[in-house]
Amino acid sequence: MTDLLPFVADLPLVDHHCHGVVTRDVARADFEGMLTEADAPSPLGTSLFDSLIGLAVRARCAPVLGLPKHAPADAYLERRAELGAAEVARRFLRATGTTDFLLDGGFLPDALTTTPECAARAGARAHDVVRLEQVAESVIRGTTADGFAAAFADELGKRAATAAGFKSIAAYRVGLELAGERPSPPEVAAAAGRWLRSGNPRLADEVLHRHLVFTGLDLGLPVQFHVGYGDSDVDLHRCDPLLLTGLLRATRDRGVPILLLHNYPFHRNAAYLAQVFEHVFVDAGLITHNAGFRAPAVLAELLEIAPFGKVLFSTDAFGLAELYHLGTALFRQGLSDFVRAALDADAVSEGDAIRLCASVGHENAQRIYRLEHV
Amino acid sequence: MTDLLPFVADLPLVDHHCHGVVTRDVARADFEGMLTEADAPSPLGTSLFDSLIGLAVRARCAPVLGLPKHAPADAYLERRAELGAAEVARRFLRATGTTDFLLDGGFLPDALTTTPECAARAGARAHDVVRLEQVAESVIRGTTADGFAAAFADELGKRAATAAGFKSIAAYRVGLELAGERPSPPEVAAAAGRWLRSGNPRLADEVLHRHLVFTGLDLGLPVQFHVGYGDSDVDLHRCDPLLLTGLLRATRDRGVPILLLHNYPFHRNAAYLAQVFEHVFVDAGLITHNAGFRAPAVLAELLEIAPFGKVLFSTDAFGLAELYHLGTALFRQGLSDFVRAALDADAVSEGDAIRLCASVGHENAQRIYRLEHV
Amino acid sequence: MTDLLPFVADLPLVDHHCHGVVTRDVARADFEGMLTEADAPSPLGTSLFDSLIGLAVRARCAPVLGLPKHAPADAYLERRAELGAAEVARRFLRATGTTDFLLDGGFLPDALTTTPECAARAGARAHDVVRLEQVAESVIRGTTADGFAAAFADELGKRAATAAGFKSIAAYRVGLELAGERPSPPEVAAAAGRWLRSGNPRLADEVLHRHLVFTGLDLGLPVQFHVGYGDSDVDLHRCDPLLLTGLLRATRDRGVPILLLHNYPFHRNAAYLAQVFEHVFVDAGLITHNAGFRAPAVLAELLEIAPFGKVLFSTDAFGLAELYHLGTALFRQGLSDFVRAALDADAVSEGDAIRLCASVGHENAQRIYRLEHV
Repeated sequence: MTDLLPFVADLPLVDHHCHGVVTRDVARADFEGMLTEADAPSPLGTSLFDSLIGLAVRARCAPVLGLPKHAPADAYLERRAELGAAEVARRFLRATGTTDFLLDGGFLPDALTTTPECAARAGARAHDVVRLEQVAESVIRGTTADGFAAAFADELGKRAATAAGFKSIAAYRVGLELAGERPSPPEVAAAAGRWLRSGNPRLADEVLHRHLVFTGLDLGLPVQFHVGYGDSDVDLHRCDPLLLTGLLRATRDRGVPILLLHNYPFHRNAAYLAQVFEHVFVDAGLITHNAGFRAPAVLAELLEIAPFGKVLFSTDAFGLAELYHLGTALFRQGLSDFVRAALDADAVSEGDAIRLCASVGHENAQRIYRLEHV
Repeated sequence: MTDLLPFVADLPLVDHHCHGVVTRDVARADFEGMLTEADAPSPLGTSLFDSLIGLAVRARCAPVLGLPKHAPADAYLERRAELGAAEVARRFLRATGTTDFLLDGGFLPDALTTTPECAARAGARAHDVVRLEQVAESVIRGTTADGFAAAFADELGKRAATAAGFKSIAAYRVGLELAGERPSPPEVAAAAGRWLRSGNPRLADEVLHRHLVFTGLDLGLPVQFHVGYGDSDVDLHRCDPLLLTGLLRATRDRGVPILLLHNYPFHRNAAYLAQVFEHVFVDAGLITHNAGFRAPAVLAELLEIAPFGKVLFSTDAFGLAELYHLGTALFRQGLSDFVRAALDADAVSEGDAIRLCASVGHENAQRIYRLEHV
Repeated sequence: MTDLLPFVADLPLVDHHCHGVVTRDVARADFEGMLTEADAPSPLGTSLFDSLIGLAVRARCAPVLGLPKHAPADAYLERRAELGAAEVARRFLRATGTTDFLLDGGFLPDALTTTPECAARAGARAHDVVRLEQVAESVIRGTTADGFAAAFADELGKRAATAAGFKSIAAYRVGLELAGERPSPPEVAAAAGRWLRSGNPRLADEVLHRHLVFTGLDLGLPVQFHVGYGDSDVDLHRCDPLLLTGLLRATRDRGVPILLLHNYPFHRNAAYLAQVFEHVFVDAGLITHNAGFRAPAVLAELLEIAPFGKVLFSTDAFGLAELYHLGTALFRQGLSDFVRAALDADAVSEGDAIRLCASVGHENAQRIYRLEHV
């Protein structure tokens, strides 16, 4: 790893999208199952440690647990078990240099640390991001087709009081081809009726995902979208951020930020949207740790046309405490390599480089999530 | 910036796609509004100067106005105002080393220099590229559904007499999924009728955009297509050049060049088309200045499979004289970096490198636009 | 070219997807016609030697024929003719360091070396990959709508006895949007009936291409898919591997490998599929030689998220013996550059690097094609 520029090594970070850490100890199969977006190692392939992220764990995480770099996977997991989940979490979370974590607690909440637990382990602030679909799914049981919109708005309003933002997982349920207009109340009621009659607790309806987003925007909090790269549940060809163009056009005048998360392998498409739409912001999220030592190459592509004021940092770490550390360390590496290349090309002054790193690392997130107020 | 190879630094260039320069002085908001594809800086983001193109203006343009590299944005704009729009245009245009400009004068003509004015300021030759849609929109008012095809062919024929080529902006109006066959006369008449009845002066009809292209090809002049990257009016997911595959297959035997402009982020797709279709040529256009010091990385991707005889240079500069200079300087940087990497890898001889740069820089354009004849 | 790491220079390779070599001598137009995916040089462009692959022939192949690096194209072809097609094939095939070739003999078999001839010229093992569509097209003539499924299964079963795997060229015929479920027997019979009635010997029917794949999987041999980059017959926008997501989901529990070939420019999409689906494997195939000295950049993108146990080597060499050599040499260059970058970044230990290169170079192919048994 090239040495980090000092002002990147010390940069305070706001991790604007992550999840909790598993509270239990994990065996090798569990660990591999949470390491990448694969459910588990393939009997036809080889260990998921044999991937750039696996190599990154052994290169960058082993020393945090007191092992030599490149320690073998089994030795690493043995040492991890010896220290215990809580100590491991504490070490990795504190190694990040993150001042604020924005946690989406909507997926598998029972197995993960809560937002306050995360804050305590990290010795940092932590804020809630509310998953729109989770609120809708909790509300639908006790309401009617006609009552859904009001019940959802009411409950979301309550949740908004202590939240930093909202998140849509429409990508996972119906893809991102959401229509470019707010659904009418009768459309929402009809869709809620279909959902109620289906008996399926899981929301997957284009009209309703869209309605959730508009309701979130009404409350004035930033709305995050899962975009692109995810696990095998996702239909990745339906998760190109360009499919959101109509919705972005319809919401650009509201002055409420929309954040496109991850975006890989469509990150250049996302950067385009961040350039041309006032309210669109982007990050590299999940790909940062997955791409291991290639993360800088991906981040450089994201930064080609996205204005610096529109790019944020996140890890999308989920479950394994290592992913916080890797996402952060590889983001710093990528930002440092990018800025160093610009400095070497005399394409930026050092003063501007310092200022722009602060913008991407924490200022943009502080500004748009109004973190001083939450 | 790595030093340019001498034969790239001195390479005469044909800029086969650009626009006029604004004739008025511009304040900061105006300047930022023309700098990228964003309409204006976002109140939620930060200045558009905080982007790779903004940094490139301060790094590469400031010295042309007699300022130190990386001069602050306000100092830069103050100096720019002091010199006046005409002197600024003269300086930047003459710094390009461009021998021939091919100007699309079809967008906001009243605010921009004309083709002869551009030539005079640059001390170079300038040629007209005629926007097909503009001609159609000027003709439709005075004709009938049945008379449209003849009236358009007649007017376009007149314009062809002094033009170097045509340009289609179908991408902006209906996207690039144009059918793979010439529309029949009754189809054209029916579409013209629909247009007339709509009362909308703006053309946006797949049949007619396609008809315009075929009429242009009949006249034997190269036809340019806007492809990919553009402002927020574009539905970028409908602007993948691969959507043109059917049309390209239907027109490959005519011996008339089709030029795919910009292409980002679909530039590798465009390069594929340039390899497999005899009449397809590509450039990187608009992305070159927007990507600032990352332009070489993008250009290298375009050059992976596009034969050197099929790649052209353009700036797509519009409005700001800086964009001519940046597009040119960053193209030279990209070409030089690419060739230097090939030379370092002993993947090309110096003699071939010189020859291939001439091909991309000016010979391909001279050949296919027959610039000695216009 | 950067020096190869010794353990990459000496790495035994299994080329899991290639074709035969032309047995006749070839003139310049023939040679250029087989060099890239273009049918022939364009009268509007320049020689196809003026491309990265053309430069690679002159840089990397000329010395194998006893010429200086960068020998001119005509001198190269003269020397080639002097040595004769058989000697040229022998030299290039033996220069590869390939131990096993898996040959798809389904395209233009009369003009190319057979699998045993290829083995003899290379002094290596060669195995058959059976093209599913070719078997179907040979069977359809002698059967009925209702009898097609059984006749095809029977014939494919016979071919499987001596084959290493199967290959689908659905991409070339109907694109990759294959439905995510096995077609029912009545659907297959109905489709076979349509095909028989059409009188067209060429298969192009989504139901049948899909049926062929499922029949191949029943036999337990790996099934390859042409994906992405190909000649002008392909509709590249219908060849994104993500379009296979439904089919991959429907076949993941069978324990039979599916191999996505080439993938460019969708190679990152393919790598995603290789990460999240147990049975999906990928290569860079055809792009490796076409991208010349840029091949390492493309390979590095493929390796971002594809686990090392899921990546294979192939040349997709067809016709020109040079393509075996180039595909191999450029793959070694790419793998070496990638690993060297990881070593330089201390992102991998040397022991792991050696082990992972063996995995990608030959072990994965040996394992999934069970090459010790065929």
